Amino acid sequence: MGRERLTAFTDGVLAIIVTIMVLELRPPHGTSLHDLAELTPVFLSYVLSFLYVAIYWNNHHHFFHLAPRVDGAVLWANMHLLFWLSLVPFTTAWMGENHFASVPTAVYGASLLAPAIAWVIMQTTIIRMQGADSPLRKALGRDRKAVISPILYLSGIGFSFVNTAVAGLMYLAVALIWLIPDRRIETALAAAEGASA
Amino acid sequence: MGRERLTAFTDGVLAIIVTIMVLELRPPHGTSLHDLAELTPVFLSYVLSFLYVAIYWNNHHHFFHLAPRVDGAVLWANMHLLFWLSLVPFTTAWMGENHFASVPTAVYGASLLAPAIAWVIMQTTIIRMQGADSPLRKALGRDRKAVISPILYLSGIGFSFVNTAVAGLMYLAVALIWLIPDRRIETALAAAEGASA
Amino acid sequence: MGRERLTAFTDGVLAIIVTIMVLELRPPHGTSLHDLAELTPVFLSYVLSFLYVAIYWNNHHHFFHLAPRVDGAVLWANMHLLFWLSLVPFTTAWMGENHFASVPTAVYGASLLAPAIAWVIMQTTIIRMQGADSPLRKALGRDRKAVISPILYLSGIGFSFVNTAVAGLMYLAVALIWLIPDRRIETALAAAEGASA
Amino acid sequence: MGRERLTAFTDGVLAIIVTIMVLELRPPHGTSLHDLAELTPVFLSYVLSFLYVAIYWNNHHHFFHLAPRVDGAVLWANMHLLFWLSLVPFTTAWMGENHFASVPTAVYGASLLAPAIAWVIMQTTIIRMQGADSPLRKALGRDRKAVISPILYLSGIGFSFVNTAVAGLMYLAVALIWLIPDRRIETALAAAEGASA
Repeated sequence: MGRERLTAFTDGVLAIIVTIMVLELRPPHGTSLHDLAELTPVFLSYVLSFLYVAIYWNNHHHFFHLAPRVDGAVLWANMHLLFWLSLVPFTTAWMGENHFASVPTAVYGASLLAPAIAWVIMQTTIIRMQGADSPLRKALGRDRKAVISPILYLSGIGFSFVNTAVAGLMYLAVALIWLIPDRRIETALAAAEGASA
Repeated sequence: MGRERLTAFTDGVLAIIVTIMVLELRPPHGTSLHDLAELTPVFLSYVLSFLYVAIYWNNHHHFFHLAPRVDGAVLWANMHLLFWLSLVPFTTAWMGENHFASVPTAVYGASLLAPAIAWVIMQTTIIRMQGADSPLRKALGRDRKAVISPILYLSGIGFSFVNTAVAGLMYLAVALIWLIPDRRIETALAAAEGASA
Repeated sequence: MGRERLTAFTDGVLAIIVTIMVLELRPPHGTSLHDLAELTPVFLSYVLSFLYVAIYWNNHHHFFHLAPRVDGAVLWANMHLLFWLSLVPFTTAWMGENHFASVPTAVYGASLLAPAIAWVIMQTTIIRMQGADSPLRKALGRDRKAVISPILYLSGIGFSFVNTAVAGLMYLAVALIWLIPDRRIETALAAAEGASA
Repeated sequence: MGRERLTAFTDGVLAIIVTIMVLELRPPHGTSLHDLAELTPVFLSYVLSFLYVAIYWNNHHHFFHLAPRVDGAVLWANMHLLFWLSLVPFTTAWMGENHFASVPTAVYGASLLAPAIAWVIMQTTIIRMQGADSPLRKALGRDRKAVISPILYLSGIGFSFVNTAVAGLMYLAVALIWLIPDRRIETALAAAEGASA
């Protein structure tokens, strides 16, 4: 089966997740800049989560360029990823509204770790489906990011009970690592296009 | 007419249904794990409904691979299906917020039975449109799931007034039956692709 | 320019409109069937509006089969239509929550009349763009529905101040007139496909 | 990489932004026209923001006709644009609910200025990617609108503290300038289609 509806559905879900998160940013009752400033923690958690969902979308976009065919197992692995991402607006709101309290900040970290694991499962499912010559496996090579990220998430979850600012910075660090995610796949795509030209 | 806009619209509606359901998962006021734990029934009903909508999407995805052409009757049969699915967030919230009380659990079951019936109507409409050589009818063969599912739904609705845990397990059982929905259609697709190769 | 993004954007907006309307259907606090029954007016107004949006989507779907090319004026005429449709969830909620009170029922009728006018404007814009041989104009022929609908809407708005049940039936009557909208266009499409075969 | 998913994701996000804004238009508790009239400032700010999002969508639509290929930098430049647009429902609600008070009106202007800047960044990113023969750069020519718009936004922000009606008119003026955005690109597209015919 082609990937078209998988990517269309994923685009839809991610577009909604990213947009409904802003609904948590409720207009303050007052009309001064001071009233607006009180929303800062909610706003910062929105920015962080927007960044995360944007990264997932960008990676998903690059990823499926190397997976034009999908099967039922890939559909479910993708749905599993979307399930965890659908919880991010909830954990974002809980953390933001409580000004980065310990437990909400740790739970937020867990809600980032879960889709990261789901991503690895999806990646493995696609590579298994593609078999020995998997173009995705070749493009990925040694996957250092996938090793470092969970360590940072777990550290962040731990630091939530010590210093939530450090926890927040660790979550931000994972985002920055993934921000330019596509060199490997763009290189593979460019090579493939060059070869077929 | 081609199926493209039918599937695009359906993807959109299902993506929104699955995502707005999580809006019912309101961040608790407290910041402890105990506060979070109180959301368990709402969370469980979200998981169950996410699973259901995901199953419908997966089946829809497979289904329309064998129905590249649609007509006005199919558009309406599909819209009828979407109508019932659009009510699932409402019944999910009612059941979850009331910790699986009897009537809400029974109504939830009814809100799962209705799209199941709508699905059969849609299936019949497509097979009738495709005529004697309907590839969909051939792929489906004897449709045992379609016989067992309503029996389980009705049993679940009945058990809602006796033991809602049993009712919940029956609804879950239908989901598990449908979780791997695509063997027949994937087989038919693979055969068709093999024949045309 | 091709119609692809116009139809994709329209599908997205209509999918969201139809789905967020159900958010007005708030779970009752009680857990009895009686509590559920109190939602009847809200539910009925949801059903009516779902039907309307579904009809617009179906007609839009058929319509643009005969308009593969669009220009800037068509984009804006379509956006104008979406603007009025985006207000339907608001008027639906106002009417439903107030159990079909006179003014909300009249305003609801006005919110159905406005997109009907916007539809005629869009139709005229497309036919003008297509020029003398407009396939859309040929398919539409004499447009009796477009004459009857505004009369029924205006009568319904008037009856809102006399008997809102009659007003509701008039709004329903327009929906039923448009429910099977596609004979003319399906006929034209079938003829075109036959000719090119 | 093709532009398909970038435009699909953007269509999704803009469709949701435009539609959830209407959720701020809450049905009044009373049922008279007077109760409805009290929503006028919320309604006017909705109309203005709908117009803005519609203009962005229209321009985006035209724009990417001349950018069939995208790279990672363009994806991020587009995501940056969507981030700022995602804040428009929030600033719209704040301004509308407070009847165009000074600070909310100024912040609203800033929330229009930000995506305007993001648009220029995206434009520059695409032109840089396309290189010396950029068809987009040729079509745009001298970009007077891009010079006038920020001046009007900044004037509007300033006037928010003097006379918010003037500020609102300035925001409206930018919208009107951009309302027919596509002559240059439609001309370029028509020329290209003529050349290839």
